[in-house]
Amino acid sequence: MALEKRRAKVTFDTMNTFRDKVVARFQAVQDAICDFLTRENGESYHEDAWEYGSGKGGGRSRVFRGGRLLEKGGVNFSALEGHSLPPSAATAFAIAPGTPYFATGVSLVLHPRNPHIPTVHLNIRYFTAGTAGWFGGGMDLTPYYPRRESIVAWHRGLKSLCDDHGRDYAAMKKDCDDYFHLKHRQEARGVGGIFFDHLRQDQEADLEFAAAVGHAFPSLYAPCLREADHPVTENERKFQLYRRGRYVEFNLVYDRGTLFGLQSGGRIESILMSLPPLAAWEYDYRAEPGSPEEALTAYWLQPRDWLAPE
Amino acid sequence: MALEKRRAKVTFDTMNTFRDKVVARFQAVQDAICDFLTRENGESYHEDAWEYGSGKGGGRSRVFRGGRLLEKGGVNFSALEGHSLPPSAATAFAIAPGTPYFATGVSLVLHPRNPHIPTVHLNIRYFTAGTAGWFGGGMDLTPYYPRRESIVAWHRGLKSLCDDHGRDYAAMKKDCDDYFHLKHRQEARGVGGIFFDHLRQDQEADLEFAAAVGHAFPSLYAPCLREADHPVTENERKFQLYRRGRYVEFNLVYDRGTLFGLQSGGRIESILMSLPPLAAWEYDYRAEPGSPEEALTAYWLQPRDWLAPE
Repeated sequence: MALEKRRAKVTFDTMNTFRDKVVARFQAVQDAICDFLTRENGESYHEDAWEYGSGKGGGRSRVFRGGRLLEKGGVNFSALEGHSLPPSAATAFAIAPGTPYFATGVSLVLHPRNPHIPTVHLNIRYFTAGTAGWFGGGMDLTPYYPRRESIVAWHRGLKSLCDDHGRDYAAMKKDCDDYFHLKHRQEARGVGGIFFDHLRQDQEADLEFAAAVGHAFPSLYAPCLREADHPVTENERKFQLYRRGRYVEFNLVYDRGTLFGLQSGGRIESILMSLPPLAAWEYDYRAEPGSPEEALTAYWLQPRDWLAPE
Repeated sequence: MALEKRRAKVTFDTMNTFRDKVVARFQAVQDAICDFLTRENGESYHEDAWEYGSGKGGGRSRVFRGGRLLEKGGVNFSALEGHSLPPSAATAFAIAPGTPYFATGVSLVLHPRNPHIPTVHLNIRYFTAGTAGWFGGGMDLTPYYPRRESIVAWHRGLKSLCDDHGRDYAAMKKDCDDYFHLKHRQEARGVGGIFFDHLRQDQEADLEFAAAVGHAFPSLYAPCLREADHPVTENERKFQLYRRGRYVEFNLVYDRGTLFGLQSGGRIESILMSLPPLAAWEYDYRAEPGSPEEALTAYWLQPRDWLAPE
């Protein structure tokens, strides 16, 4: 059980009180989420503590493989100092490549067994390079056979979280829709959530918000888990594997976090933990007219205001 | 059967005799390979003829789904004129983005059912932009449970093909090893073959060579097909799916052809036909010491001179 696990505490001689605080808060988020998942899943995770080869720091990768709910799930924490900002990040942040940087974050992707439970992604991160420092993160849901109640509850929860912290849900929701978009398919990855980056107005308040996003995860995802025992047809399983292919496409072609990881010489097994346990590609797949599979792309994956009255 | 199929002939009013010749020769390569595969596979392909939305031209995508040998196989031909060279190609070719271009090629990826048969890739292409025009291509083999005889026969065949056309096998073999390399894994994709690009010394001779590469495919791949009835354990199938994940990683993260296709607004289903029907990712997989699975990366995927005496 998770509570009996040896818990590596990752600490850094950063000589920087704020960074140390972020590192501690983020690890607490990872712990809380892993405790929740262990309870729900009825089976604990495997942990690998690792050190960053090309600089100072490291991480704790935690992977769920099996259990009642999860076919595969990864909940990673890492904190590292790099000597030289990789090109993808340098371009994105308009900072000279080669600037030293510090990055810490918690990253989660869960691939549930049952296609009636959505795949889910969460990330919170803190990044400094040169004199600049900022927070980013978000969470988004990728259902296969969506249920309106779960999606609405998800967005309602995110809205009230944003409200509590004086953040603009509508803007972060739009940024999420814009970011998790497969341009080559002209298709949304899922039904969204929130996405934020470059938060740097008030470090302490931004940290509170990022940590709150992490701690909100269990209650926001819990409604989706009610479908754990939903019967599954062979066709539904096939469709889940097919749609997971889109997840792979997004993560390998577009995801900035993945690209940053690959370019910064991070730990590959942790970076690619987001990839599904099994995925399928079928040439020119077309859903049957009127089927739930057709409704996924035709209706559910069309960005919309989930909080508007129906 | 293939021979009874309607065969779309793709023609272009290019007003350019050489281009028309390349287009015709390349389509003949696609036909010859598809006839060979239909015979071996005992089942024919599905063809989609399509038109290029953003410019002039189109293609013939042919997909094998099922049959004795192939779990999925794609053999594509396309020829198109674009108004504006996409950024990936512009950078690679040092040509201003936005230059009009013409591109034609045959592209093949086969994912055999039996893990004792290697996945294989072949490409021949002709590209012009501005006043420059050149040929490129190659073929490479990605085994799961390699057999030395097949690999040696593969490389020996490529060497004699190169010799016949006065081409430098050793240089093209090295370029293949360099190109099909997963940098983030520090791992070769397979046991290589040949790769060439920017052939522009003698258009007619270069076309003969590119076409010969295409026509050589059946006899070069045939030895691998002898394993079609090799017994397969559950563990071997699992390993095949796991290794196919690497194929996905290469194609989505590094492959210039895929990137060019995604950026030039090509037909997505044809571009991504190279992706395997089913692929798996397993966190921190480690092969058993002394197993054939360990030997794949420890021995077979180490670039070496396959023609040197043992």
